[in-house]
Amino acid sequence: MSGRSQGRRAWEVRASALARNTHNPIRSIVENLQVEPNPEKQLIALSVGDPTTFGNLNPPEQVIQAVRESIEWHTSRGYGSMVGHPEARQAVAEYSAHQGPVTADDVVLSSGCSHAIELAITVLANSGQNVLVPRPGFLIYKTVAEGLGIEIKYYKLLPNQQWKVDLEDLENQIDDDTAAIVVINPSNPCGSVYEKNHLNEILDIAARNCVPIIADEIYEHLVFSGHEFTSIAALSQDVPVITCGGLTKRFLVPGWRMGWLIVHDRHNILGKEIRKGLCNLAGKILGPNTLIQRALPTILKTTPQSFFDEVVLFIENQAKLAYEELRRAPGLRPIMPQGAMYMMIEIKMAQFPEFKTELQFVERLVSEQSVFCLPGECFCFPNYMRIVLTVPEDIMREACQRIVAFCQEHIVTKDKLKEIDTNVVLPNASEVICNDALPRVS
Amino acid sequence: MSGRSQGRRAWEVRASALARNTHNPIRSIVENLQVEPNPEKQLIALSVGDPTTFGNLNPPEQVIQAVRESIEWHTSRGYGSMVGHPEARQAVAEYSAHQGPVTADDVVLSSGCSHAIELAITVLANSGQNVLVPRPGFLIYKTVAEGLGIEIKYYKLLPNQQWKVDLEDLENQIDDDTAAIVVINPSNPCGSVYEKNHLNEILDIAARNCVPIIADEIYEHLVFSGHEFTSIAALSQDVPVITCGGLTKRFLVPGWRMGWLIVHDRHNILGKEIRKGLCNLAGKILGPNTLIQRALPTILKTTPQSFFDEVVLFIENQAKLAYEELRRAPGLRPIMPQGAMYMMIEIKMAQFPEFKTELQFVERLVSEQSVFCLPGECFCFPNYMRIVLTVPEDIMREACQRIVAFCQEHIVTKDKLKEIDTNVVLPNASEVICNDALPRVS
Repeated sequence: MSGRSQGRRAWEVRASALARNTHNPIRSIVENLQVEPNPEKQLIALSVGDPTTFGNLNPPEQVIQAVRESIEWHTSRGYGSMVGHPEARQAVAEYSAHQGPVTADDVVLSSGCSHAIELAITVLANSGQNVLVPRPGFLIYKTVAEGLGIEIKYYKLLPNQQWKVDLEDLENQIDDDTAAIVVINPSNPCGSVYEKNHLNEILDIAARNCVPIIADEIYEHLVFSGHEFTSIAALSQDVPVITCGGLTKRFLVPGWRMGWLIVHDRHNILGKEIRKGLCNLAGKILGPNTLIQRALPTILKTTPQSFFDEVVLFIENQAKLAYEELRRAPGLRPIMPQGAMYMMIEIKMAQFPEFKTELQFVERLVSEQSVFCLPGECFCFPNYMRIVLTVPEDIMREACQRIVAFCQEHIVTKDKLKEIDTNVVLPNASEVICNDALPRVS
Repeated sequence: MSGRSQGRRAWEVRASALARNTHNPIRSIVENLQVEPNPEKQLIALSVGDPTTFGNLNPPEQVIQAVRESIEWHTSRGYGSMVGHPEARQAVAEYSAHQGPVTADDVVLSSGCSHAIELAITVLANSGQNVLVPRPGFLIYKTVAEGLGIEIKYYKLLPNQQWKVDLEDLENQIDDDTAAIVVINPSNPCGSVYEKNHLNEILDIAARNCVPIIADEIYEHLVFSGHEFTSIAALSQDVPVITCGGLTKRFLVPGWRMGWLIVHDRHNILGKEIRKGLCNLAGKILGPNTLIQRALPTILKTTPQSFFDEVVLFIENQAKLAYEELRRAPGLRPIMPQGAMYMMIEIKMAQFPEFKTELQFVERLVSEQSVFCLPGECFCFPNYMRIVLTVPEDIMREACQRIVAFCQEHIVTKDKLKEIDTNVVLPNASEVICNDALPRVS
């Protein structure tokens, strides 16, 4: 171009590539589902990972009281520092001592754990690089990365081994452009909790290939009896780990958007540059709400262990209830979780030849039984669905019974399939079966 | 590359280009200043644009009460929708009726106004495009844009015409790659408030060149007597305007990070794509704190006009006080603001030949008088400094007196300069003057 070009002559305003390439996959999938519930049955949404939805789980009085007090303080209204108030960061450091030696300088406060994840990914990865995430896994990683040209690559979890990492696959996915490995533990959506030994196996791969780890531990300590939570950072000898956490799940206040990340860098591999980069990126929105920041030290110090124990016990009981109920559902295989607040359920699609995909399965489950489960597609894992375990007991029981009834109605057993082959008079399901679905059964 | 490349053999973790290129210019400049105050005088920071710093300005009881109530509601703890709770968006729409017809669908809630600005810029501009911002102007634009490869270009404001836009310069800056024009009104750092006529002149340029406007109106309604605030969106016939605002300044709660943007798109030029893009981008951090979102309708509806009037009157009185005091400071030229909460002061550097730049001037002002003003460099406008007007009256008076004393001590009048030429015995300042500073005087 020579000289100044004088702007445009006609209006044409496009959304930027960043905006167009930033997606929330769950939202996109759910928006495209036909989820009109059966008007004769109350909708039960087992889809939303918000433990406060049903009103049965509430933060402890100490948390509410800490914020009540914070409101009255004049210091809870002004700007915080970019990475958070020093007292709040110190409190997070003390609260996170189980992760290894942590000081306030290692802590960056964020607007919820999603923001912490965004900071961790964007400080480590350039456009053109890739970040490895588990499949199935929570897809905020895709949301924050892809708009920036950062590729998300998947490594496999093994559903028949309590969702352990397929170590060979993980190592195979690493290439020169791998900027970080994301480890979600306890896992959303699987509810798995990794033992130390397995975490060490993951660390070995990271160390061998010199790739830092982003540890998504927003479900830390939400672990059922007989299992133990270990922060991967606590085991790291040299691998730099950025741990992401927050109040959201454990304290039952997701809407408050109080998250943080912690930089574990025992051998000074990340150095000043990464810390400065995090500060730069956090400076864009000037930190999380200071009302909650000011309350944070009290929240973290005064919430009694009994509160945590009760919440975990409740979720564990719901998991057992759902597991026992859904084991009775023909064609389903629930996988008992070890923690977090979700259960994955395999749908043996071959036995439901009416439905081409699990998306159709969950759609019909809504329209007939008014129960909504998230299809595995939302976690890049077809043929499964995820349910949340934080709903009240009676609702969970009702939901499971409806799911069982739905499966009983739609299951096509081997015997029935044979019947279809020889007898075209079979009602209902047969119409669908005789279409393109049948070949998938064999 | 052929085959899989097996990761790295040695640790080398760099911060991403995005992280390295994301800067807060004010922070960088301030961090590099020598700002050790005189231990014998209490530091007065006239630098921080946080009206709550000194404790003299507090949100009204209605705002605090609205949040007290919100805390008790179970619905204030769950996730909000990505663009905010419908009731909160509806309340913002009603509160913003002065901007033109606004519905809840036009409103996106954000984590403070900085986040609204980030959303507006990133939805409109691609890497390689540019956004025009005023000089002097608030530099969050640089912070959010440059890391993404979006260029910030400046158009001039005219200090001798109450900081009106240099319209010719504005139009000259527009090129094929200009994605948006940012208009800050009332202005940070200038305190100017544009009349309708002038806003229409800006709109004409945007319309002629088909460039949308981002209106930074976080200081809306903070306007001194004799002036009137008009939202540029209210005047737009066809130019799409994205207005950014929030509770921060007007309600004196910057730390709560409650901001919003409003899409004004009368001729449907932005269309669905921009709205969807905004939703995508907002989805990355899942909206602002829901405790405040739930309180927002009450906050916006119950805060009495008398509160706003009192705050504006206080700031206006401080402006008059500072203006009258600083007019007496030799070598300074304060420019009386019309609104917001700042005043720009020209430093006639030629009369302070000791100091090469205004950075050195403000450094010395701290080390001698313990008064800290932000150098114009923070707004890309050298030879000026900015003071905040929200400090208590006695502190403001004391600060001004110290600034006057400082100028009296360091000013070098024409007579004195002549003296220097002929008489080398002149004390103090002469040593510096005889170095490299002198040539700049002529």
